[in-house]
Amino acid sequence: MTAATLMILTRPTETSAASGSPGDPGYVLADADAPHVNVMDLGVTRGDGIFESISIAGGHPQALEAHLARLAHSAALLDLPAPDLPVWRNAVFAAIEVNSAAPGSPEELFAKLVMTRGIEGVEKPVGWVYVSGIPNFTAARSSGIRVVSLDRGYRHDVAQTSPWLLQGAKTLSYAVNRAVLREAARRGADDVIFLSSDGFVLEGPSSSVVLQHGNRIRTPGTDQGILAGTTQASVFEFFAARGNATSYEPIPAEDLQTADALWLVSSVRQAAPVRRLDGTELAVDSDLATELNAFLLARTE
Amino acid sequence: MTAATLMILTRPTETSAASGSPGDPGYVLADADAPHVNVMDLGVTRGDGIFESISIAGGHPQALEAHLARLAHSAALLDLPAPDLPVWRNAVFAAIEVNSAAPGSPEELFAKLVMTRGIEGVEKPVGWVYVSGIPNFTAARSSGIRVVSLDRGYRHDVAQTSPWLLQGAKTLSYAVNRAVLREAARRGADDVIFLSSDGFVLEGPSSSVVLQHGNRIRTPGTDQGILAGTTQASVFEFFAARGNATSYEPIPAEDLQTADALWLVSSVRQAAPVRRLDGTELAVDSDLATELNAFLLARTE
Repeated sequence: MTAATLMILTRPTETSAASGSPGDPGYVLADADAPHVNVMDLGVTRGDGIFESISIAGGHPQALEAHLARLAHSAALLDLPAPDLPVWRNAVFAAIEVNSAAPGSPEELFAKLVMTRGIEGVEKPVGWVYVSGIPNFTAARSSGIRVVSLDRGYRHDVAQTSPWLLQGAKTLSYAVNRAVLREAARRGADDVIFLSSDGFVLEGPSSSVVLQHGNRIRTPGTDQGILAGTTQASVFEFFAARGNATSYEPIPAEDLQTADALWLVSSVRQAAPVRRLDGTELAVDSDLATELNAFLLARTE
Repeated sequence: MTAATLMILTRPTETSAASGSPGDPGYVLADADAPHVNVMDLGVTRGDGIFESISIAGGHPQALEAHLARLAHSAALLDLPAPDLPVWRNAVFAAIEVNSAAPGSPEELFAKLVMTRGIEGVEKPVGWVYVSGIPNFTAARSSGIRVVSLDRGYRHDVAQTSPWLLQGAKTLSYAVNRAVLREAARRGADDVIFLSSDGFVLEGPSSSVVLQHGNRIRTPGTDQGILAGTTQASVFEFFAARGNATSYEPIPAEDLQTADALWLVSSVRQAAPVRRLDGTELAVDSDLATELNAFLLARTE
């Protein structure tokens, strides 16, 4: 995958608004294949920045407002200036428009929003949005994925006790989130569920965990040092409309073993049922999974 | 600070050696002010890469071999291809040479070595070396710094139990190491000592911790999920030559309170005595600190 369309934001933060002239949209179209990041940008030297990945289905960015709100929340957790959300929103739509105009543009795409603290010593934030194609997730969505549970090393309450650890912020410092996928592959699995060091279910490296026990659909709350799941919120809507009881609560790791069904849900892959957990097979209701993903992909906002 | 000299490595890893023609040094001089990193490079999108910062004093890169060995160790922990160390070594010397030829080149500089996993989906590692000036650390080196201890959230043994957390690797995912400095500033301090969640002394966000109790000089060992300190090794040489007993061992957090002296030691700032810890003043032997820093700065390798 390479980026198809790139917008560089000339006005990424509210504090940079003064630099814009009237009529300036705050972003410019750029060549996605050319380098745009300085080697001293703190985004690359320190992973010091934030991001969002937004699914685009049928030309619609999904849960855009939830993603923009989370971008602003991440910025606050990192003491970054507030992102200028109207500029980011318009840049996403503009990137989609350029991309959709290209012949053969696929039905599903994703947009990535990145804001870094900028060049070391200068610290003027920079930002960009790119739109790119996605892998084919048909099998993951209908037949499911193999998952292993791995220790994240932190207690479930670490976001309250030690906010400087940035749990709950979607930062560019994701080397661990990549390393756990390599560990999963070594164990013959596709993805990971993080557990807290004191035995609670947290989230995947780029997804939320949803558990079903009978009529009950649960996910851990954001007080567990995890991200607010934008897709997970839509998954709860789907289940609530079917008459399931949905709730946010601390979930002991043992509950993974007794679940009737498990999903990892995320923006780009949407809902992936778990068909194997730590080597144990789980039943997957493929009809339900297909229906849930159709619901998610039909979202127009 | 901006980079003064930049070398882009055309042969960053041993596996990329085949791409070089005979006589090709494996690096090229580049414009440090121009962008060189693609927006889809995993170094920036995921902090997925490694780095080293090397002090250059009087034209000599200090502890270069220890830094190169640590770069290779970090690469292995991240499942990256082995860096082509002769190319990195030569690129450092070449960058220093270009920089030293510039009029008014300062006595102290630093070199930063960065290797990322490369563009997402392509995953051909890229690397570069830049040389830059450093802030004036005279006061920190002689009069000392104010430090707060902060929870790192991990147990002291997490590198053994959960290697996917990459503790002990010097990765580009350093957003937390930056966030703790902002927390320190909020508490009126200059730097941080990380403690494990089970109460052991670990390291600073970019330094090693050295404690003195009478004749004993100690630092935590690398089995505590911390980096092998390149400057710390030289500090031990200094103290051993003075007849002090040096050792690596697990250090309970309480020992910080009873220490006769504390230092944070690192490549660029060298040895900074701690003059205040968590609000409590510590005596600083400025003569000793000056002597120690003179020893460190005199290193020619």
